Amino acid sequence: MTPTNLLQSIHHDGSARYVGPQTLRLGESVTIRLRAHPHAPLERVLLRACPDGEQLFVEMQGRAESAVCRWWEAQLKVTMPVMGYRFLLFTTDGVWWYNGSGLQRHVPTDREDFKLLADYQSPTWVRESVFYQIFPDRFADGDPANNVRDGEWNFGGRTARARRWGEPQSNVPHADMVEFFGGDLPGVEQHLDELSDLGVNALYFTPIFTAYSNHRYDVVDYENVDPHLGGAAALISLRRATRERNLRIMLDIVPNHCGVRHPWFQAALRDPLAPTAEFFTFQSHPDQYESWLGVKSLPKLNYRSAALRQVMYEGADAIFRKWLREPYAIDAWRIDVANMLARQGADQLDLEIGQGIRRAVKAENPQAYLLGENFFDGSAQLQGDIWDAVMNYAGFAHPVWYWLGGFFVRQHSEPYFVASEAPWSTAALIETWQAYRAAVPWVIAQQQFNLLGTHDTARIANVTHSDPRLTRLAVALLLTYVGVPCIYYGDEIGLSDDARACMNWDRSTWDQGLRAFYQKLIDLRKSSPALIDGGFQVLLIEENTFAYLRDSDRDQIIVIAQRGPHTRSAVPLPVAQGAIPDGAEFVEVISGARAIVANGHLPLPDLSAGVMVWRSV
Amino acid sequence: MTPTNLLQSIHHDGSARYVGPQTLRLGESVTIRLRAHPHAPLERVLLRACPDGEQLFVEMQGRAESAVCRWWEAQLKVTMPVMGYRFLLFTTDGVWWYNGSGLQRHVPTDREDFKLLADYQSPTWVRESVFYQIFPDRFADGDPANNVRDGEWNFGGRTARARRWGEPQSNVPHADMVEFFGGDLPGVEQHLDELSDLGVNALYFTPIFTAYSNHRYDVVDYENVDPHLGGAAALISLRRATRERNLRIMLDIVPNHCGVRHPWFQAALRDPLAPTAEFFTFQSHPDQYESWLGVKSLPKLNYRSAALRQVMYEGADAIFRKWLREPYAIDAWRIDVANMLARQGADQLDLEIGQGIRRAVKAENPQAYLLGENFFDGSAQLQGDIWDAVMNYAGFAHPVWYWLGGFFVRQHSEPYFVASEAPWSTAALIETWQAYRAAVPWVIAQQQFNLLGTHDTARIANVTHSDPRLTRLAVALLLTYVGVPCIYYGDEIGLSDDARACMNWDRSTWDQGLRAFYQKLIDLRKSSPALIDGGFQVLLIEENTFAYLRDSDRDQIIVIAQRGPHTRSAVPLPVAQGAIPDGAEFVEVISGARAIVANGHLPLPDLSAGVMVWRSV
Repeated sequence: MTPTNLLQSIHHDGSARYVGPQTLRLGESVTIRLRAHPHAPLERVLLRACPDGEQLFVEMQGRAESAVCRWWEAQLKVTMPVMGYRFLLFTTDGVWWYNGSGLQRHVPTDREDFKLLADYQSPTWVRESVFYQIFPDRFADGDPANNVRDGEWNFGGRTARARRWGEPQSNVPHADMVEFFGGDLPGVEQHLDELSDLGVNALYFTPIFTAYSNHRYDVVDYENVDPHLGGAAALISLRRATRERNLRIMLDIVPNHCGVRHPWFQAALRDPLAPTAEFFTFQSHPDQYESWLGVKSLPKLNYRSAALRQVMYEGADAIFRKWLREPYAIDAWRIDVANMLARQGADQLDLEIGQGIRRAVKAENPQAYLLGENFFDGSAQLQGDIWDAVMNYAGFAHPVWYWLGGFFVRQHSEPYFVASEAPWSTAALIETWQAYRAAVPWVIAQQQFNLLGTHDTARIANVTHSDPRLTRLAVALLLTYVGVPCIYYGDEIGLSDDARACMNWDRSTWDQGLRAFYQKLIDLRKSSPALIDGGFQVLLIEENTFAYLRDSDRDQIIVIAQRGPHTRSAVPLPVAQGAIPDGAEFVEVISGARAIVANGHLPLPDLSAGVMVWRSV
Repeated sequence: MTPTNLLQSIHHDGSARYVGPQTLRLGESVTIRLRAHPHAPLERVLLRACPDGEQLFVEMQGRAESAVCRWWEAQLKVTMPVMGYRFLLFTTDGVWWYNGSGLQRHVPTDREDFKLLADYQSPTWVRESVFYQIFPDRFADGDPANNVRDGEWNFGGRTARARRWGEPQSNVPHADMVEFFGGDLPGVEQHLDELSDLGVNALYFTPIFTAYSNHRYDVVDYENVDPHLGGAAALISLRRATRERNLRIMLDIVPNHCGVRHPWFQAALRDPLAPTAEFFTFQSHPDQYESWLGVKSLPKLNYRSAALRQVMYEGADAIFRKWLREPYAIDAWRIDVANMLARQGADQLDLEIGQGIRRAVKAENPQAYLLGENFFDGSAQLQGDIWDAVMNYAGFAHPVWYWLGGFFVRQHSEPYFVASEAPWSTAALIETWQAYRAAVPWVIAQQQFNLLGTHDTARIANVTHSDPRLTRLAVALLLTYVGVPCIYYGDEIGLSDDARACMNWDRSTWDQGLRAFYQKLIDLRKSSPALIDGGFQVLLIEENTFAYLRDSDRDQIIVIAQRGPHTRSAVPLPVAQGAIPDGAEFVEVISGARAIVANGHLPLPDLSAGVMVWRSV
C-alpha cells in the first residue's frame, strides 16, 4: 500500500477497543484510542473536543503494537451529557480531520463528530438480542374461541369478516383492514419452543390493545389487551412462558393518534367542552380535525394538553408506565409514528414530549428499551435523551433494498411511487450506512433496530425477486451489521407473499435450508463478541462487492457481500488495514472453508452472487 | 462539457432567484427553484421535505429559459418554523441527491438540507451594511481630560499606566492589560467623516462599559459607559452623530462572565448568602469558583439563577434591553463568548438562555442584530431561534487564513500552537465554506459576520506576510463572500502591527492605494444586488485558484482568487454552468478591463497572485 492508501487504515469507532470504559459517568475520564497501520504517514495526532463550546486539543501518544497495528491514545474528561470529539492528523501530506464521516481535508462542523453519552441509561440486554416480529392476527391461532366472528362489527363502512387460516387476503381496498384470521397470544405461546429453536430471544408484537382493525393501530383502549387476542390473561401467561425461556417482549404503543372510536374522541365529538376534547385539535368542530396524514379514522393526539401528557406518560398510573409493571413487565416499547409524535406545524413538541416519555419509562425500568418508528432520519431524537433507537429503515434497510433491488421512493400522496432503473452503487450503500451511524452516538448505533422488512413493507424475498443467494446475503447483513437484528415472522421459512400473510404451519413446505442459515447466523450473532458490541470497519468497496470487519479483542468477523450478476474472480481481500496480521486464520461460517492471511490479504475463492462470513479461529 | 460535468451546473441556494418570497410566514407557500444547464442529464426532479417528520415529495416542473439555463420549479407549504428540503434528481446515470452539501449518491441525513425559516425576524439592514470594528482605547483620543491617569488603580497585581499615542505596547505578560492610550468615544465621533468616506456604515465597538482593563471584557458595571471613554453622554452624542450619517452601532456585551471586581461578585465573595451569590458557581467558597477558561479574574455567571436572568435580559429594565432603548438605541449586540454562554458541564442551558435573550431583544427592537462570538461551529445556535449570526471565524476567516498562510490550531492550554507546513488545499477552503453555509438557513448565512481579523487575532497583513497582492485578495473575498463584512480598524490603511496597536493618524504614512481598494469594493458591496443578497456558486477549483459567482436577477459578480506562487496561464473561466450566456459582458472592477463571454467561457489574462472582481455590465 502507498502512504496515502495507508491513511485509509486509520480507524476509530465507539466500541471497546477504541473507547474505555464503555459506560461513562459525567465528570469521569475516558481513554480514546485511534488505530492505524504503523506505516501510515502520521506525524502527530490531536484529539479534538469542544467542552462547553470551547475547542480543546489533547495530544495523542503513539505506540506500535504489531507489524500491522499502531495505537494512538489520549485521555478525555467527559464533562457534558453529550460529548463530541474528532481527530486532527498531521501527516507528511498536510492535515486531515477524521470524524464519524471519515477522513477529510476541510474543517468539518461538529455534526459528524464521534459522540459519547455520559450517565446514559442503556438497555444493555438489547445488544445480545435477536428480535422476531409478530403481527398477532397472522402468526398462530391458539384459541379459536376468541376469534372475531363474521359481521361482529362494522368499521369504516366495512363489515368484520372471519377468514380461514392461510386464505389469500382480500384485495378490496380497505376491506383487508377488517378481515381477521384468528391469530392470538395463546398461538404465540404455543410456538415458543419453535422460536427458541430458531434462536431468537426477543419478540416484537405490533399492537395488541383493543381496536377494530386487524392491525390495531386504531386503538380504542390503551388499558386492555384485545379480547380477540386473549385479553390480559393471555399476555400474563405469555409473559410467564417467555421468562422461562429468557425471551424478551416488546409491545407497540400508538401515542401519536388513536382510533376514531376511542371514547376520548367520541366524547370530544359529542361535546367540544368534554374533558378529553383538548386531547385533539379541531379546526372546526366536529368535522375538521387533525389526523395522521389526513386519515380521519386516526385522529391525532394533541400534546399541548397537560391532561393528555398525564394520562399517557406523566401520571403515576399512566399508560406508558402500566405495562412496564408486573404482571406484564414488558421489556420494551416500540413507539408508533415516533417521527411525527407531538409535532403539529408551529408546535414542534417532539423533543420535550420524547424526553418526558423517556423520564417516565426509565423511572419504571432503567433497562427498558425505547424504540421509535421512523422511516427517515431519526437522529434528532437519538442523542441520548429520547429514544434508545429507531427502526433502522433509513440507516440500514433502505440502502440494502436499493443496492439489491434498485432505488425507489414511496409516499402517501402524489407522486406515490418513483423508481430508478439504474443500479444503485455500492459506494452509496456504504456511505448511507456511514452517514446514519455518524449521526448518532455509538452506543445508540449499537442499539439501532435493523430489519429487512416489516408489516409496512415488502418482504425481503420480494426485494430480491426470490433469488435465494441475494436473500441470504441480506440476512447475513442483518445479522452482522452494527445494531440489533429483527427477523420478520415467516421470512425464515421463505414466505414471499404479502407481508401480512398468515404464518405457514405446514412444516413440510418450509425452506429448511434457509431456516438453518438463519439459525447458524443467529447463533453466531449471539455468541460473537465482535457482533454483540464490536467495532465496524469497511475493508473493500468494488462495483458489486463490499466487505467489512467487525472486531473485538476476542474475535473478528469479516463479511463479504457480492450482488452479482458476474462472478468476482479470486482476488484476495486486503485486511492489513484492519490490523489483521499475516498468519491469522479464518473459517467461513456456512461452508466451513478455512483461509490464512498472507501478505496482508485474506485469500478468497471466485465469488458469485452471495455472501461469505469469515470468523477468526 | 460532458453530461456528468453538466450535472455540476445544478444550482440552488436560498437567494431570491431560487426561493420566493424571501420573507416567509408560517403556513404560506413558497416557490422553490432549481437551475441547471439545459443539457444536464435530468429526467425528473423531486423536491423533498419532511413536514412534522414525515417525508414528502413534490414533483418539480422543468422549463427552459435560455441556451444555458433551465429552471425546475415547485411549490412548498412552509408548515414548520424551520423547514428543511433537498432535491432528488433522476438522471440517465441513476439518482443523485442535492442538498446544502452539494450532489451526492448516498441518501443523506436531514442535517445538510437547505433550510427555510418561517416567521423569523431578520435584521434586514445588516445585508446592506459594511461594519468597521473599533477597539475604543486605541482608535482616537478625542478628550484627553478623561484619560486614565498613571497609577489610577491596581488590577491583577499591575498598576494602570497612561501611555502616549502610538508608543509600542508593553510586552510584559498581563501588564499590557492595564496600559491605556486614551482612545474614547469622542475620538470616534471626531472621525466619523473619515469612516463615511471609507464607506463603512456600521460600527462595532468592543466593550465600552466600565471595567479595569483596557479591553473591558472584565466589566464591573453593565449599566454605565466607562467614564474614561466619555461616559453615557459621549455615547448619546455619538448616537446622534451616527444617525445623521446613517451609521449603525453595535455594542459588545459580556453575559458569560463579569470582572472580578463587579459588585455582584464582591458581595458574593464577602457573603455566601448575598443575593448575588447565586449569580456564580462556587465549588468552595470563596476560593474555588467557575471562571472563563480558568481565568480567576473573570468569574462565570450562572444562568441557573432566575434572578440573574431577570437582571440580564428578562426584567423590564434588564441590561440587554436598556441599551436598545433611547437615547442609546443601539442597533445590535455582539455577545461575547456566546459559544460558552450558560454552559457548565451537566447544565447545558445555552439554547434556553439564548432563546430568552432573543425574545427580550426582539421585543425591544425586532430589527436588532444579535451576533454571537464563536470561533468554532456555532450552527446549533443559528437555527432562527437564538443568534442572527456568529463572528464567522470558522466559516469564513479560518479557511482564508489557512489557504493563504497555512493551517494551524491554537488554544489556551497545551499544545498551545500546532501548525502544518504543507499548503492547505483550495478544495479544503471551498468545502469548509460550504459545510458552514450548509449548517445554517440561508437567511442566516447572509447575515454571518465575516472578518479577516479582530482584536483577538493577528491582522490579515500578518497572515499574508504583508504581501499586498494576497492582502487585497483577502479583502476582496471579505467584501464579496456571502455574509456581512467587517473591517478591522487600521487594516484599511495598512497597519501590520499588533492587532491592538493605536490607529495611525499620520495620513502621510497611510497606504492610500490599499484604502482606495477598500473604498472601491465597499462601494461595490453596498450597491450590487448580487453582493447584498444574491446567490453563491463556485465556478472553478484549481490547485491555487478558485472562482465564484454571486448572482441576482439584476447583476452578476465573478471573483477569481489566485494565491500564486506561479502565474496561472490565460485559460478562460467556464461560466456556462452559472447560466451566464455567450455575449455577456463583464468589467473588472479594479482595472476597468472588459471581457465578453464566448463558448461558455469568460476570457482571462495570465493571472499572477491576486484577485479579479468582474461585474456584469
